[in-house]
Amino acid sequence: MIVAMQPNATEEQIQDVVARMMEIGFNVHKTTGTVQTILAGVGTPGQFDHKDFELFPGVAEAVRISSPYKLAGRGFRPEGTVITFPNGVKVGGEEVVAMAGPCSVESREQIFLAAEQVKAAGAKFLRGGAYKPRSSPYSFQGMGVEGLKLLREVGDKTGLLVITEVMEISQIEVMLPYIDCFQVGARNMQNFNLLRELGKVRKPVLLKRGIAATIEELLLSAEYILAGGNYDVMLCERGIRTYETYTRNTMDISAIPVIHHLSHLPIIADPSHGTGKRAMVPAMARASVAAGADGLIIEVHPNPDKAVSDGAQTLFPEQFAKLMDELRIIAPAVGRTVTAAPVVAPEPAAV
Amino acid sequence: MIVAMQPNATEEQIQDVVARMMEIGFNVHKTTGTVQTILAGVGTPGQFDHKDFELFPGVAEAVRISSPYKLAGRGFRPEGTVITFPNGVKVGGEEVVAMAGPCSVESREQIFLAAEQVKAAGAKFLRGGAYKPRSSPYSFQGMGVEGLKLLREVGDKTGLLVITEVMEISQIEVMLPYIDCFQVGARNMQNFNLLRELGKVRKPVLLKRGIAATIEELLLSAEYILAGGNYDVMLCERGIRTYETYTRNTMDISAIPVIHHLSHLPIIADPSHGTGKRAMVPAMARASVAAGADGLIIEVHPNPDKAVSDGAQTLFPEQFAKLMDELRIIAPAVGRTVTAAPVVAPEPAAV
Amino acid sequence: MIVAMQPNATEEQIQDVVARMMEIGFNVHKTTGTVQTILAGVGTPGQFDHKDFELFPGVAEAVRISSPYKLAGRGFRPEGTVITFPNGVKVGGEEVVAMAGPCSVESREQIFLAAEQVKAAGAKFLRGGAYKPRSSPYSFQGMGVEGLKLLREVGDKTGLLVITEVMEISQIEVMLPYIDCFQVGARNMQNFNLLRELGKVRKPVLLKRGIAATIEELLLSAEYILAGGNYDVMLCERGIRTYETYTRNTMDISAIPVIHHLSHLPIIADPSHGTGKRAMVPAMARASVAAGADGLIIEVHPNPDKAVSDGAQTLFPEQFAKLMDELRIIAPAVGRTVTAAPVVAPEPAAV
Amino acid sequence: MIVAMQPNATEEQIQDVVARMMEIGFNVHKTTGTVQTILAGVGTPGQFDHKDFELFPGVAEAVRISSPYKLAGRGFRPEGTVITFPNGVKVGGEEVVAMAGPCSVESREQIFLAAEQVKAAGAKFLRGGAYKPRSSPYSFQGMGVEGLKLLREVGDKTGLLVITEVMEISQIEVMLPYIDCFQVGARNMQNFNLLRELGKVRKPVLLKRGIAATIEELLLSAEYILAGGNYDVMLCERGIRTYETYTRNTMDISAIPVIHHLSHLPIIADPSHGTGKRAMVPAMARASVAAGADGLIIEVHPNPDKAVSDGAQTLFPEQFAKLMDELRIIAPAVGRTVTAAPVVAPEPAAV
Repeated sequence: MIVAMQPNATEEQIQDVVARMMEIGFNVHKTTGTVQTILAGVGTPGQFDHKDFELFPGVAEAVRISSPYKLAGRGFRPEGTVITFPNGVKVGGEEVVAMAGPCSVESREQIFLAAEQVKAAGAKFLRGGAYKPRSSPYSFQGMGVEGLKLLREVGDKTGLLVITEVMEISQIEVMLPYIDCFQVGARNMQNFNLLRELGKVRKPVLLKRGIAATIEELLLSAEYILAGGNYDVMLCERGIRTYETYTRNTMDISAIPVIHHLSHLPIIADPSHGTGKRAMVPAMARASVAAGADGLIIEVHPNPDKAVSDGAQTLFPEQFAKLMDELRIIAPAVGRTVTAAPVVAPEPAAV
Repeated sequence: MIVAMQPNATEEQIQDVVARMMEIGFNVHKTTGTVQTILAGVGTPGQFDHKDFELFPGVAEAVRISSPYKLAGRGFRPEGTVITFPNGVKVGGEEVVAMAGPCSVESREQIFLAAEQVKAAGAKFLRGGAYKPRSSPYSFQGMGVEGLKLLREVGDKTGLLVITEVMEISQIEVMLPYIDCFQVGARNMQNFNLLRELGKVRKPVLLKRGIAATIEELLLSAEYILAGGNYDVMLCERGIRTYETYTRNTMDISAIPVIHHLSHLPIIADPSHGTGKRAMVPAMARASVAAGADGLIIEVHPNPDKAVSDGAQTLFPEQFAKLMDELRIIAPAVGRTVTAAPVVAPEPAAV
Repeated sequence: MIVAMQPNATEEQIQDVVARMMEIGFNVHKTTGTVQTILAGVGTPGQFDHKDFELFPGVAEAVRISSPYKLAGRGFRPEGTVITFPNGVKVGGEEVVAMAGPCSVESREQIFLAAEQVKAAGAKFLRGGAYKPRSSPYSFQGMGVEGLKLLREVGDKTGLLVITEVMEISQIEVMLPYIDCFQVGARNMQNFNLLRELGKVRKPVLLKRGIAATIEELLLSAEYILAGGNYDVMLCERGIRTYETYTRNTMDISAIPVIHHLSHLPIIADPSHGTGKRAMVPAMARASVAAGADGLIIEVHPNPDKAVSDGAQTLFPEQFAKLMDELRIIAPAVGRTVTAAPVVAPEPAAV
Repeated sequence: MIVAMQPNATEEQIQDVVARMMEIGFNVHKTTGTVQTILAGVGTPGQFDHKDFELFPGVAEAVRISSPYKLAGRGFRPEGTVITFPNGVKVGGEEVVAMAGPCSVESREQIFLAAEQVKAAGAKFLRGGAYKPRSSPYSFQGMGVEGLKLLREVGDKTGLLVITEVMEISQIEVMLPYIDCFQVGARNMQNFNLLRELGKVRKPVLLKRGIAATIEELLLSAEYILAGGNYDVMLCERGIRTYETYTRNTMDISAIPVIHHLSHLPIIADPSHGTGKRAMVPAMARASVAAGADGLIIEVHPNPDKAVSDGAQTLFPEQFAKLMDELRIIAPAVGRTVTAAPVVAPEPAAV
């Protein structure tokens, strides 16, 4: 931490600040210039809020220097994290992985058909919500445990990994037997109790950026999970709220290279929520891969116009397949690959 | 809902849209202009997302007309809601009420002293956190049940009402015996399961606006509580995230008259979180009352510089007392009052 | 400036940074901690961008300490600027001044009637646009010089000061004989050539904050005018762009106390543009005065529903008069006054 | 326009609205539902602000349906605009074009070297500022006409097209003999007088999106130029202001497909200003092309660390060359090409 004193600060004021800095564990180095005195605190103090120092008389500004996260920082694992799933699929490695499927699990027929379609196009994960957070209390709220069972069954039959959203602590135990990866939604990015509990399980977690969260806050939230000993965390950019209203959110593609710079954790892009408009999804998916994303999570439904939720941002299966072909062209530009679609159409999963 | 067709839309496309509108429960009126056809859906259909209609071929734009909340709307109770607490204090009536106290309950001594001080200045509620959500996992996390017991004890001794933040469903039962009012923090504004549960209790709830929530979303979240039968809901403006960084958030004072226009629920202002800077708190508290706020919630600590959390935005007791005097001048400009401070200093509450 | 090196920075890298800091005029003080080395640059170097230092190998972060504006800073004139107009009206003194009138000058009759009405309510300035910037090329663009002449005539007859918007350099000379104060609109806040020219004239300037400008940028723009020797600058908060769409802009009331803290320049509030909605204007005007604004600029029109521009945010004369009465109650809470309305109705200005 | 009346609106109120709608040129169709009456205005009225209708008693909401721009809309030229420059280079066609060069023209040597380097990598335009808008009055302000002459000379010697920023009307005439394309900066996007004048010249204009401009506002500004008869307009996404501070702006990549959807004008991406950080520029350039951009404008300098302005966001020539190679891989994924770099190194342009 750096504390810059005001030009007219008295020696007594300076000493008060020095005393407080030492009290919380800093070694203090003092620089007296022609204009002002600057105090540099070095060392590893306990918890404190640097802004509190701006309240001391005579202080002009207090600036934090070290980043407030440790385990999530690139320095903790410079080579980058690669998460290996039981079936051998890796996230954060050479391959750019696709997670695809409907917003909500609606029925046995729907989820089996969707799984088949996204697998045929080259997806490695099936996504689908069993519990739905909805901003209106009058909307569909999800199938619950029945949805989880369907996801597991279709995952086993197709070889797709299963990822679904966990909304509260009590759901963790319920979900554990059925899923391969937890997803924490944007609204829960700062539900610290939930994050702490997810730090105790030993299944990977995809953590979405909150709609108004800075990149630093996203990394601090990841720190909660990592601090519990669960190192298999993926981050997810899904659009932030800005003044532009044509798209539902503004997808911050630059967060992808920035997170690779600041952190060792893989970063997944969600162009479906990032735009809220089907017509914009393929362009933003391509942009994400070109910017270096480690994976994509995309809403695909056998018949989007009949989807019970998020239909407006959901791709048709054919659109998704075409997109995957485009990504196969782009990935080599960043030294990555996208697995070829299965040469033979997969045996239809029995419903 | 209004659906505007593109100028070159075919009759078949128009019929498809009409069919779908009728399917979800609308009566449809068609207006054919020289440029384009416009379809007006009237009636009270079931749940649907008007944006889905923009995906139909030939549609230029779909616009929702009616507001998506019902119980929270001004029309539901045009005269405005007044919440009456057991000791007769009213929120939403003529009096502008002050809720004040430290960010966190830290000790018996601290909370008793704080209570005495804010009561002497004219506050009607004591605020104080027993459970703290913190963005860093390495910060102080609150006293828990011990904190709740202290709040109840000091509330009973001073006659102050007790308000504290509830962070998850499991805390509701724990808190019920100790508190007079639940507070839902900005991060939980869209924790719909929590809101639903709070709809079942019969204690008032203060619901804070999320850091990136629109006013409409805040009202939709209130709707979750109201829909459960708990009508004693206060809303709270506490600053939104914008590009300006000098203040921690940008306090949206205009939300106060807007909410009075759109809703019957009382609106409380939180200038402490709204600015994040002690020096700006009094100005924003005055502005809130001048704009019509029904109350204020303000952080006050016997010694802010030693507070374990939020010290930088916390008032000294003398500052709070001076502010209350200023509010007594302002309130009559909007036809309101702020109770005079007790003439005799209150008997010190025994510790 | 402070430069924090990375923990693993080499001595050579550190020396490179030190050399460059000295090259641009800093005295450099080096602090070697257990974790990292910190370099503090003190002195008054020439122009440079501190961000450039983040590009040096081994640098973790570079932080600017001193504020980049000088003449606009509070330190330059700690007692605050008071602007005295030829007729004795002061801005920045004890009185809170009101500037009011229509968005555009539309006709002789309209502007004379408006002037009479706002004067009767206690306004000291008449506002009115002769040149209008419009976001659509198909809208009304103003009366031009004819409008200026009308403004001067009515100003002379009523004793009101005249303020109007200057949109480009060529208009400065044209306007000088007719007006008492220039107004720079939000869109021109960073039109630096215009600002530079306004620094050369000797008439006060009201400088509006850009729709996405930070407070620091506003002060830097004021610096352009001050640097030319024109010290009579007022700043104006008129709403910033945020994600909230119910109001046209989000009025940043907290900018009022912040600017008083950082700068000596008076700050005027514009609740008409700040909200874009007539129904919200009085509440935001009251809030501004309660927060310490030195004045208000408000759109008032004899018949807002027939105004050629901005009707939706324009007050009726009766609403304005009522507002002024409310402000007379509020101003004493901040140690200010609002002049009483003339006891006798002013003699009607001859048309 | 659609006007939705309140449920309890009287017939007289409805008639008042109808009368006003007809007065401004609408044919009005009235739909009476069980809940409320809806008025649809069809036809092509003169200028009006639909928000004014919300002020009529009994009106719940007024909604604009048709887009307010005409010439800039996709419907005006469904096949898309292709701009052909005198040397045959096309913007908006199959090729994705690169515009590259330093922020400012600093010297003869610098600009000749930069031109050679960017041409060798495959750029078709040389960018470079002769007049610089700077937010601080104490920064370098550009070489002026000398810079223009150097740009023309190097353009003629290398065959590169020359693009430079025009900041005010008086510069248009000055620049005309020297340049191939005008660039309007973000700060001037709503300088309507400047736009109008650019509508009268017959040279292409690249119009940058304002830092807080919506896509609709960008198209309305383009409309000013098109309305003057200059149809050769390119739009440019260069980052918008959001709450995220790690990058200087947040580059809105989704604006690229959105603009292609709404308008026929080509869209260029500026990842240098879009991020403000050199390390993020290549990723965002790749993302832009993958999202469908028609071109890129990028800051490249022979020695960025010595650049007088914007060094922190400027690429080294080698970085630019590597980026162009990556773009050659990506472009085919969207059916586009990036010209191969000249096989033989270009003869060094004589200095």
